Amino acid sequence: MAKTNPGRFFEDYRLGETITHAVPRTLSGGERALYHALYPDRHALASSDAFARTCSLPGAPFNDLLTFHTVFGKTVPDISLNAVANLGYAEGRFLKPVYPGDTLASESEVIGLRQNSSGKSGVVWVRTTGRNQNGEPVLEYVRWVMVRKADPGAPAPEPVVPVLAPVLEPGRLAIPCGLDFSRYDFTLAGEPHRWGDYAIGETIDHVDGVTVEEAEHMMATRLWQNTAKVHFDATFRPDGKRLIYGGHVISMARALSFNGLANAQMIVGLNAGAHANPCFAGDTVRAWSEVLDKAETGAPGVGAIRLRLVATRGGEPFALLDSDGKYLPDVLLDLDYWALMPV
Amino acid sequence: MAKTNPGRFFEDYRLGETITHAVPRTLSGGERALYHALYPDRHALASSDAFARTCSLPGAPFNDLLTFHTVFGKTVPDISLNAVANLGYAEGRFLKPVYPGDTLASESEVIGLRQNSSGKSGVVWVRTTGRNQNGEPVLEYVRWVMVRKADPGAPAPEPVVPVLAPVLEPGRLAIPCGLDFSRYDFTLAGEPHRWGDYAIGETIDHVDGVTVEEAEHMMATRLWQNTAKVHFDATFRPDGKRLIYGGHVISMARALSFNGLANAQMIVGLNAGAHANPCFAGDTVRAWSEVLDKAETGAPGVGAIRLRLVATRGGEPFALLDSDGKYLPDVLLDLDYWALMPV
Amino acid sequence: MAKTNPGRFFEDYRLGETITHAVPRTLSGGERALYHALYPDRHALASSDAFARTCSLPGAPFNDLLTFHTVFGKTVPDISLNAVANLGYAEGRFLKPVYPGDTLASESEVIGLRQNSSGKSGVVWVRTTGRNQNGEPVLEYVRWVMVRKADPGAPAPEPVVPVLAPVLEPGRLAIPCGLDFSRYDFTLAGEPHRWGDYAIGETIDHVDGVTVEEAEHMMATRLWQNTAKVHFDATFRPDGKRLIYGGHVISMARALSFNGLANAQMIVGLNAGAHANPCFAGDTVRAWSEVLDKAETGAPGVGAIRLRLVATRGGEPFALLDSDGKYLPDVLLDLDYWALMPV
Repeated sequence: MAKTNPGRFFEDYRLGETITHAVPRTLSGGERALYHALYPDRHALASSDAFARTCSLPGAPFNDLLTFHTVFGKTVPDISLNAVANLGYAEGRFLKPVYPGDTLASESEVIGLRQNSSGKSGVVWVRTTGRNQNGEPVLEYVRWVMVRKADPGAPAPEPVVPVLAPVLEPGRLAIPCGLDFSRYDFTLAGEPHRWGDYAIGETIDHVDGVTVEEAEHMMATRLWQNTAKVHFDATFRPDGKRLIYGGHVISMARALSFNGLANAQMIVGLNAGAHANPCFAGDTVRAWSEVLDKAETGAPGVGAIRLRLVATRGGEPFALLDSDGKYLPDVLLDLDYWALMPV
Repeated sequence: MAKTNPGRFFEDYRLGETITHAVPRTLSGGERALYHALYPDRHALASSDAFARTCSLPGAPFNDLLTFHTVFGKTVPDISLNAVANLGYAEGRFLKPVYPGDTLASESEVIGLRQNSSGKSGVVWVRTTGRNQNGEPVLEYVRWVMVRKADPGAPAPEPVVPVLAPVLEPGRLAIPCGLDFSRYDFTLAGEPHRWGDYAIGETIDHVDGVTVEEAEHMMATRLWQNTAKVHFDATFRPDGKRLIYGGHVISMARALSFNGLANAQMIVGLNAGAHANPCFAGDTVRAWSEVLDKAETGAPGVGAIRLRLVATRGGEPFALLDSDGKYLPDVLLDLDYWALMPV
Repeated sequence: MAKTNPGRFFEDYRLGETITHAVPRTLSGGERALYHALYPDRHALASSDAFARTCSLPGAPFNDLLTFHTVFGKTVPDISLNAVANLGYAEGRFLKPVYPGDTLASESEVIGLRQNSSGKSGVVWVRTTGRNQNGEPVLEYVRWVMVRKADPGAPAPEPVVPVLAPVLEPGRLAIPCGLDFSRYDFTLAGEPHRWGDYAIGETIDHVDGVTVEEAEHMMATRLWQNTAKVHFDATFRPDGKRLIYGGHVISMARALSFNGLANAQMIVGLNAGAHANPCFAGDTVRAWSEVLDKAETGAPGVGAIRLRLVATRGGEPFALLDSDGKYLPDVLLDLDYWALMPV
């Protein structure tokens, strides 16, 4: 028997099973520093202990996407090693801030299975939960991927497609315990625009661009212990290109969105996400946002804002779909998330 | 109104105003590790808690340039986003060592303004102060930049050019509280040469060279949350090149200067600095130094040494100016600073 | 007298002398995070404080190779600055785990000298010891290098070739104090294979590959304060290539070996090692292992496994030598080490 992990194939998943993902990870100021070196992130809450304390947190939590990548990376050997497509995200909820010294682990429950009509692959839906060293959930999200079958003759499971919320209701968002924006310092945060200044339907071109290098996306992806071959091995694809981890584009776009959304401090919900086109080294990533919704929260001074975040590698800002409703070729990412902002 | 920051133009500055820069930053061992990964720095005081304690410090402070870059980076969105030239530095004083766990913030006072004769731009002088979480100043320096006008018709301000010390008097240097080099271990520090071994006028070729990569200078520059587009976006300049942040060259040259100046442990004064020519990925950076002056200090075993640090991308060591008094094309940096050295 | 370090030449070494290497280094979570960003390492013991505690350690120790590189890097300015070949390693013993906050220093004893018949160079054997801030040895190993003579006319020393163990006897391996694998969690560790599942002579193709970039190997090598010019300066070799530090290949191969040897948690012995061919940026590094031996230890649940780890940049797995007994051109590394594994 081979000792290496071949990954799971479609027929290896059972509805309702829980997969405990390997390799828990203790995070420190080192991961935070690398996050700042890899992405042009400037959100003050994740940058400064002192700023976070004025928001009644015990110190600066990690950038929420650092938590996401860490939890996500652990799932790759079990969920997406043989995936042929990353189809979507839904019902992502950030449940508790993560701080230096915390240790994260992940598990996933298989909540849906549907074989494709070709009989060669199928779609697997999992609900993944990240937990800290005390077993407290810090993040959960649903993800679905198309996975190859090893044996095309393996019988198809009874198709089960989970019913997922297209958007998280604001009431389901977990506001970090104690968070208080009533003493929020807009000058130190970098922009004067508060929750009340954003209108539903408003679009923001984040202006800046970053040309991506191979060394950067590989360092980032390794940092999250993501093992997908396609990101690291230039001999893996026929074209000799390394595909950039979609999460690298998410973090890059979110960091670029500081310019215009500096006060969208914490991500608390992930409604949907599509990696519209692949990103490669040499691409210059830009971003634009659209305000999709707004909601009040019960926390002092804290509003919720629902944003579409689009990453591109060129093209005009605010262009998303072609006349057939398909993503334009320069669109890399279309993400729908909830963030917290001072009112 | 656009939500993104267009940066300030020349006519937006007022003499005497104080600009509070955004995004305070808590530094940890992560930033220190990255500094060592990005620059070949080996100065023992910033490398080892144990060594620093033998010098009566509580632990290893950050490399002083890490402090400089962190404080400087915060000023970019307010000072140099629309700068067309970085003209000079003066009266830089490192006032207090910074340690892991400290949070830095920056503010700048506009101390000089002079419109250019073209009417299209002007020179802005600012005195920038970096402070820790207790409000204690850790660094101050004067910098002047040429900034474009958005409206060429905007009236010119009364020209005010600050009088700046060409060189900091040794008495103005802030010696870190308690610093004591009387038990200094030259073997562990890496070289036997003490303050008394250096003669004014002596020149040192630091021998080693480092060929710079895009991923490295971008990671460094992002780490300091410096947002200048020209460092990151390969589509920004007509030639498709990304200009390397001048501070990256300063840190690279200072690290290379370990070989011959291993005991020039701490930078305490920045007298002047010129980014003589732009640096691009692929350049091989080398460095040489000249001893400009020496001074005693009141701290036990501690002498001050004034050094010219020149970074080049080729050419002969010790060559600086052409026959017209202009910097030779391979000279990248000409920095004049005070460091502390065991006597 | 030049102030820069010219490195030692063959005639500068004296049998029995002890060389104290410069620049002690305090390691933090920053170095750990960078290790994870630079190498696809997933061994749970070095990744998670919580996992390490279930193995009765106080927290996650650094990856043993991080300790090796840190100790090794300090020796470069004294041992290998003028080396023309890195000939071998032997009797490497990891004596005590290293944790964030520890400060490492290195010293080497010259234990062998033999001038080459050409009279232009000679072989120097050193036993290097790394110590923590309490003076406790954390690592020792023997290394031998061929070093140029500065003066070919300098007299040859009496040849002394140390007798070195070809393989460390299992009884000489230092098992970390308190280590206990009796509650080892194979699910969290990532693979079910225990010590008893590996057979002597078994070979494992680790499957994954990583294409190496210049920025990555330079950042890694600088992180260990290794100053060898050939790794950093593209103008140093006539072919304009930067030679990748052999230790970078060791860490890359060891990290890749997770896939199939996830439970080979700690390296405790280094029996031998050869950098068979140089590695350059653009190479895609792969790895395979062979089980050379197994031994019991006195620690609860802990077995020792002796492994050959081979790194390649192509070619077929398990191919090592040509018909003349020379390393095949695609073989980069042949390492023989002892690791600890749950029984």
